[in-house]
Amino acid sequence: MNSINLHLQKRVLHGIIERALDEDIGAGDVTTRSILKGFETGIATAYAKSATVIAGTDVFREVFLYVDGGIAFRGFRSDGEAAAPGDIIAEVGGNLGSILMAERVALNLFQRMCGIATFTHRFVEAVKGTSARILDTRKTAPGLRLLDKAAVRTGGGFNHRFGLFDGVLIKDNHIAAAGGIERAVMLARSGIAHTLKIEVEARSIDEVDQALAAGADIIMLDNMGLPAMREAVSKVAGKVPLEASGNVTLENVRQIAETGVDFISVGALTHSAAAADISLRFD
Amino acid sequence: MNSINLHLQKRVLHGIIERALDEDIGAGDVTTRSILKGFETGIATAYAKSATVIAGTDVFREVFLYVDGGIAFRGFRSDGEAAAPGDIIAEVGGNLGSILMAERVALNLFQRMCGIATFTHRFVEAVKGTSARILDTRKTAPGLRLLDKAAVRTGGGFNHRFGLFDGVLIKDNHIAAAGGIERAVMLARSGIAHTLKIEVEARSIDEVDQALAAGADIIMLDNMGLPAMREAVSKVAGKVPLEASGNVTLENVRQIAETGVDFISVGALTHSAAAADISLRFD
Amino acid sequence: MNSINLHLQKRVLHGIIERALDEDIGAGDVTTRSILKGFETGIATAYAKSATVIAGTDVFREVFLYVDGGIAFRGFRSDGEAAAPGDIIAEVGGNLGSILMAERVALNLFQRMCGIATFTHRFVEAVKGTSARILDTRKTAPGLRLLDKAAVRTGGGFNHRFGLFDGVLIKDNHIAAAGGIERAVMLARSGIAHTLKIEVEARSIDEVDQALAAGADIIMLDNMGLPAMREAVSKVAGKVPLEASGNVTLENVRQIAETGVDFISVGALTHSAAAADISLRFD
Amino acid sequence: MNSINLHLQKRVLHGIIERALDEDIGAGDVTTRSILKGFETGIATAYAKSATVIAGTDVFREVFLYVDGGIAFRGFRSDGEAAAPGDIIAEVGGNLGSILMAERVALNLFQRMCGIATFTHRFVEAVKGTSARILDTRKTAPGLRLLDKAAVRTGGGFNHRFGLFDGVLIKDNHIAAAGGIERAVMLARSGIAHTLKIEVEARSIDEVDQALAAGADIIMLDNMGLPAMREAVSKVAGKVPLEASGNVTLENVRQIAETGVDFISVGALTHSAAAADISLRFD
Amino acid sequence: MNSINLHLQKRVLHGIIERALDEDIGAGDVTTRSILKGFETGIATAYAKSATVIAGTDVFREVFLYVDGGIAFRGFRSDGEAAAPGDIIAEVGGNLGSILMAERVALNLFQRMCGIATFTHRFVEAVKGTSARILDTRKTAPGLRLLDKAAVRTGGGFNHRFGLFDGVLIKDNHIAAAGGIERAVMLARSGIAHTLKIEVEARSIDEVDQALAAGADIIMLDNMGLPAMREAVSKVAGKVPLEASGNVTLENVRQIAETGVDFISVGALTHSAAAADISLRFD
Amino acid sequence: MNSINLHLQKRVLHGIIERALDEDIGAGDVTTRSILKGFETGIATAYAKSATVIAGTDVFREVFLYVDGGIAFRGFRSDGEAAAPGDIIAEVGGNLGSILMAERVALNLFQRMCGIATFTHRFVEAVKGTSARILDTRKTAPGLRLLDKAAVRTGGGFNHRFGLFDGVLIKDNHIAAAGGIERAVMLARSGIAHTLKIEVEARSIDEVDQALAAGADIIMLDNMGLPAMREAVSKVAGKVPLEASGNVTLENVRQIAETGVDFISVGALTHSAAAADISLRFD
Repeated sequence: MNSINLHLQKRVLHGIIERALDEDIGAGDVTTRSILKGFETGIATAYAKSATVIAGTDVFREVFLYVDGGIAFRGFRSDGEAAAPGDIIAEVGGNLGSILMAERVALNLFQRMCGIATFTHRFVEAVKGTSARILDTRKTAPGLRLLDKAAVRTGGGFNHRFGLFDGVLIKDNHIAAAGGIERAVMLARSGIAHTLKIEVEARSIDEVDQALAAGADIIMLDNMGLPAMREAVSKVAGKVPLEASGNVTLENVRQIAETGVDFISVGALTHSAAAADISLRFD
Repeated sequence: MNSINLHLQKRVLHGIIERALDEDIGAGDVTTRSILKGFETGIATAYAKSATVIAGTDVFREVFLYVDGGIAFRGFRSDGEAAAPGDIIAEVGGNLGSILMAERVALNLFQRMCGIATFTHRFVEAVKGTSARILDTRKTAPGLRLLDKAAVRTGGGFNHRFGLFDGVLIKDNHIAAAGGIERAVMLARSGIAHTLKIEVEARSIDEVDQALAAGADIIMLDNMGLPAMREAVSKVAGKVPLEASGNVTLENVRQIAETGVDFISVGALTHSAAAADISLRFD
Repeated sequence: MNSINLHLQKRVLHGIIERALDEDIGAGDVTTRSILKGFETGIATAYAKSATVIAGTDVFREVFLYVDGGIAFRGFRSDGEAAAPGDIIAEVGGNLGSILMAERVALNLFQRMCGIATFTHRFVEAVKGTSARILDTRKTAPGLRLLDKAAVRTGGGFNHRFGLFDGVLIKDNHIAAAGGIERAVMLARSGIAHTLKIEVEARSIDEVDQALAAGADIIMLDNMGLPAMREAVSKVAGKVPLEASGNVTLENVRQIAETGVDFISVGALTHSAAAADISLRFD
Repeated sequence: MNSINLHLQKRVLHGIIERALDEDIGAGDVTTRSILKGFETGIATAYAKSATVIAGTDVFREVFLYVDGGIAFRGFRSDGEAAAPGDIIAEVGGNLGSILMAERVALNLFQRMCGIATFTHRFVEAVKGTSARILDTRKTAPGLRLLDKAAVRTGGGFNHRFGLFDGVLIKDNHIAAAGGIERAVMLARSGIAHTLKIEVEARSIDEVDQALAAGADIIMLDNMGLPAMREAVSKVAGKVPLEASGNVTLENVRQIAETGVDFISVGALTHSAAAADISLRFD
Repeated sequence: MNSINLHLQKRVLHGIIERALDEDIGAGDVTTRSILKGFETGIATAYAKSATVIAGTDVFREVFLYVDGGIAFRGFRSDGEAAAPGDIIAEVGGNLGSILMAERVALNLFQRMCGIATFTHRFVEAVKGTSARILDTRKTAPGLRLLDKAAVRTGGGFNHRFGLFDGVLIKDNHIAAAGGIERAVMLARSGIAHTLKIEVEARSIDEVDQALAAGADIIMLDNMGLPAMREAVSKVAGKVPLEASGNVTLENVRQIAETGVDFISVGALTHSAAAADISLRFD
Repeated sequence: MNSINLHLQKRVLHGIIERALDEDIGAGDVTTRSILKGFETGIATAYAKSATVIAGTDVFREVFLYVDGGIAFRGFRSDGEAAAPGDIIAEVGGNLGSILMAERVALNLFQRMCGIATFTHRFVEAVKGTSARILDTRKTAPGLRLLDKAAVRTGGGFNHRFGLFDGVLIKDNHIAAAGGIERAVMLARSGIAHTLKIEVEARSIDEVDQALAAGADIIMLDNMGLPAMREAVSKVAGKVPLEASGNVTLENVRQIAETGVDFISVGALTHSAAAADISLRFD
């Protein structure tokens, strides 16, 4: 699934890789340029130093190939699989200068994606057996949203809207500006493409009622307590899906899921996941 | 100190902001475009939801101004100061559509920088009283290195080389390719600008000896245990600075510092810091 | 409505203007450079040479300001208003060299937008009194979609999805690849953001039935005859909206609307509208 | 002839294709990504739905190859040939996801170029037997001038200057600024490369006389009536070429040509040609 | 004259400045960032250290303003004027960090332009009294052609075509490919815009005859000796202008001019001019 | 050595080539497009017209390959070798249109690099037998620094810092702003990466003393006379390296070297080297 994603969006990925290489290499790798003759070759293995869910293998490989099309890359794990400490994940071989030049950027991207997938996986496991789906948010590292969101999917989560352009989320500012929730939903309905749903943010049961009456397609329960969430679930009774949002942690996610909400969005998936510990070891 | 930094590198920052906005807004903010009339105004305050060290106020402000030069921004905290939960950090006012459009990108960057500064600060506090400096690494979020490294400085850390172009780090691959450590240092010395120092990576006391003999300007102790580090410090006896690297945590950083090394580099500062919890609240 | 649109997407607009100016001016306006001294000023009025609906006034103005921030621009018509032959639409004044340099690009964009709005308006008038909305398509001039779609809205039409990213349209290829329409809709539902609706293309009443059963949110009637459309409308009975698509002309659009479909998408709005006849006359 | 054109300007073409794909695909083709597995293949034929002159086959092919170098493309018609309704123009085969992703952009560009060539061809046919050449103008779709002008040539027309940089056209503003037509021509002559000709715009027989006297290399008859054009032709008597410009239609172009002018420039060729009706049909 | 040039092409100039600053500053001015507080101000004067013709004052100023819009710039010499050793050319004042950051790029561009103007001026002086004009070529520093050619004009020279797009120069390869000079000229005539002249390269008197017969608008005498040039001048007898090209030096340029040719093109103007010696001195 | 350099920095080189081709070709090579059919082939040899040191062969080849991957290139000389007038340096063969399109840009870059290497080589020869190294400066052609500095190395010189980011050079402005040289060095030491050395500019023996006392890693003797340089060398006595800078010519460089300084930096290497005389001759 991930592979077609990259196939379809190679240009975005290449932009990310190019900027990362520019940032890291700039006026040149002075160490390698001065010491290597240029024709040395090498082989290195990427291995896990702690347990991780693998995500972004295609991205990892693409950085090496972007730097030097002659590098050979062999992956030993598929995206979504788990790796234990010491497990070998992939092998790269080819021009040594090229591998050294690509190494840091490749690992920075790969470790981030594996870290996000691993963290997401823990949330997904935590709600297992409930009907709630774990969603990401727009709280991604600026410039890396495509990869952050792909890693969430690999970890078993689902994507919320990608940006401001592919989903409508009406907040209280919009409601105030429109002069009421009904009018805000109506304005949105006639101003957006008919292919988009309208989600309305509610902070109380009263607002949930209003959103329902106004014809919202989805209702977000913003920073509500568990009792309020339960009441909202019971009131809405499946007429539209409900999304819980705000202060979700590994500790409370199960309880939230058990209220019966359909989606739980978690900003931490992409803004606070620790990088996976993966190293490159030359033979 | 941070302000001049941004003054001198506004173009890099603008590139980061522009890409982040493109990613988030793309073909347009469909919610705002369909509901707002365009002339609404609003005021919002950014406040801390948990304790944090402030970093990147200039970046936070710049995103709003980049979107709309007419937005007024007032900061209540300087970079490096601490904020407690509930503290108001800044205030933005102006066109409502502009503020909503800038909000997510501004927070994504600011929360990341505050998170890195806060995490760095804990490492710096942990080694207080020793002579060791906490260093960052090149393990930054691809595309955001300038900001990641600025946040480390704000948190009290120091920067290692920015990329492959402004520092020489000779690893075993280079040594093997050159045919020995002495020859590697010699080749580097005659191939690089005389304004750059030469750092050599050592994995054992024996390699420390060789690096010293070869004329290294700095020696990196790579993944050494505490006893080996102590021996290295005693052997080198201040002739060149020593940098400890590998598996540094908040738990072991003090012990490492007490071996007498000059620098301790910590990848986690930039690849595993949790984002600070900061929100924008409209009045 | 249009003004906020431009306010929110100035950066996309500036990209369009910049490329258009590069294309037109390249190594320089040799006529103006060699003849003008540089400090001459001038005033010119833009007037309609044939009847048109005005669209893109903000874009027209922005080109002049992009070239020279010192140019004064005054619009006499708002977007959506009609202009008769001879009507003055706007006035520009300032540095003569700047005005001459911006003139062609400004007119090329403005004439195109007015042309699309005018053509759209004729379709909208033709279906007046029915409940059908006129939609645009992705058949826009490559690179100008933002402006083409804004002009459609100004002319009274509505926008279909902007691109492949903000709407799902399942075609027979997707269905075949998925192994059936039900499975295709199910795969889409679990792979996309929950903020997006799923539209399914149907070429026969049978396919309409299947789409309905599979849970499509919208059904597109692709190149169907009027009787088939009527049957589809009656069968679906308002459960989901229906979109008529294919070979829509000013001649047949009323009949299509009268079948009771909700949307009629018209590629010609953006790929075959004649440019409005607007000129700049210097005083 | 067209093929060498593309060979020499592949970079400009690639810029056009890249921007068009970015605009259309943005954050990804959500339909295809969620439904296809990634390894499906398909074959499709492009066929004419109404009569058209073929133009831009190389551009059409290049879009598919740009998206996926593994797509096979076979053209059945050469640029400049006519296609009747139902005629198959080309065949593409390869990865299904790639073809679906490239389809719309490829058709948008191809339909536009064929439309322009077809429209141009009608003007060229209309003046057959006279010595007048049909010229395009700078009234092209911003960003697509290279393709618009190539399509004009394919349709049998000729190109006017590409932009402001490769031809001098002195208008009344320039003349006023210079203080007379003679001085304007003189200033141009000494300020521009000697490889460029100087064309002067004339609105009356009197201005034609002055332009001739001033040493213009070409004279443009701007919005003149047929009798004035005839008089100009007779007065100038072949000393310099004459270009008729303004309000040229398929209805009046023959009469204009018969006045004896050398060139007739027609803005409508590129700003008001309807797109050719061409579709992609999967097998 | 130069000012309008910059006014009309600010975007090209800004591209040059931006790339030069990126190249020079990259990840930041580490000296200034670490030592300055950010609010220091300074004043500096640019003065000539050897005799020079001034060219590019606007470019010099623009670099400072590009870095910091708050810098004040005062020029004491106009483009085209001479400066003697010790003469003060301009003064800049404002934020010290900004001035230091802009200094090197500003001087690099300014010293180059002054150097080219000075060198050009010597060639122009050498042919004074003859009717020959000194022309530049396409042998400019890649990326800086706009500035190189502006400097030639300031030094009293004239510009040849800017690039391959705004002038036709038929060489023997083209003639061979076309199957003869007559056919080459004919093909060019019908393939290019009618606003362009056709220049033909001739290496012998025989080829001059052929070019004349084929209808060339200009003939280039390529690497001919003085006697051959004289013969060409006498044969052509003013029917078309003649351009001498190849191995032109300050030593032989007068003799070449005295043969009666109309243009003498000199590659050295832009590829071998020494930079003017200009320094910035802080008060 | 040069080959690995290009291998590691192909992206920077490609940026230079792309911009140079855009500048030269723009809207197209009108001569070639109108005359050639597109399938003609040709072979040409690059030969020296005067004595030169070869530098940039890889760059020369890369321009041809960038334009057309099908061009065959064969080099007969390696970088660093000398070529005498008439010597054949390389041979290119392939599509004629491609070769003509690449020719000027390829030669412009190659002639510049050979010219710089040749000029550098003369300085290096002049100081032969002394211990001084010839250094370049940041006085390079804006946008071409990578190539200018590579050519200096090929000519036997050494590179100074690449830009403001990879070396610290403290000037009197910095010292004044810091409030003394000791404080300036201290501030730099704690603000920069520990991989960078600190160079201090001194204008007198007194300042040399101060710089030494402040702990400078390198001292630059700025525009000092020979006696002062000798005194500085004797005073510093090898404690830190010394760099002579300012007004260095082929006439005085030997004397400067004989004072015992370690480095001599020469701006003229890159801002005033005449281009090598190299031509392309078609068979």
